[in-house]
Amino acid sequence: MYIEIDFESDEAIYLQLRNQIVLGIATNQYREGESLPSVRQLAESIGINMHTVNKAYHVLRQEGFIRLDRRNGAVIFLEEDKSHAVREMQETLQMMLAKAVCKNVSRGEVHELVDEIYDRLTGGTNA
Amino acid sequence: MYIEIDFESDEAIYLQLRNQIVLGIATNQYREGESLPSVRQLAESIGINMHTVNKAYHVLRQEGFIRLDRRNGAVIFLEEDKSHAVREMQETLQMMLAKAVCKNVSRGEVHELVDEIYDRLTGGTNA
Repeated sequence: MYIEIDFESDEAIYLQLRNQIVLGIATNQYREGESLPSVRQLAESIGINMHTVNKAYHVLRQEGFIRLDRRNGAVIFLEEDKSHAVREMQETLQMMLAKAVCKNVSRGEVHELVDEIYDRLTGGTNA
Repeated sequence: MYIEIDFESDEAIYLQLRNQIVLGIATNQYREGESLPSVRQLAESIGINMHTVNKAYHVLRQEGFIRLDRRNGAVIFLEEDKSHAVREMQETLQMMLAKAVCKNVSRGEVHELVDEIYDRLTGGTNA
């Protein structure tokens, strides 16, 4: 598992960790059913506190990306909560598009950005 | 100026205030060149600390939505920093779309959401 943390970033380390794991799942580096490293292993390999890894794993569980159990630790498990995901996206998009309108980023440009990033994540395979 | 703060929300009050002002600009409730209320007025009318309003105004200035001067206070002023806005959108979209891929929200559904919210913000007038 390759995780890159920017210790200079304003973003909390547990959120960077969460984001990298979500990106890893989206890009098929980590697949459903696979175990993530134990909290201790990951903390040691990155050089961060175990508490921070724990926090990231608990957020990922809460958001329906992994399950946690005593035997297997953290396992990728994508909860079927599409309607929740859509509601979250609506909130994110509302603020992002309000800024876009203020800064003269056109609707067409937004659609292009979406396609560009969607292609990059899925290797252009996902319709 | 109509501002609605959710005191039960997890989101910091200064960020809610920032967001509502950006939404107000996007939806043409507040127009370029208009003054926002003074820090004291806004703090009193919402029932929050002056420090919180100050923080929101400083973030809005930093992000290029207002300018601050002694004579006129906070004035809507949209900085021409489209390329910066686009870079920010790329970051936001990368995480949002990674989640979308994980949760089976299709590319087409994302485009529909963008159109829906863009229409709502601009009243369908902005191409």
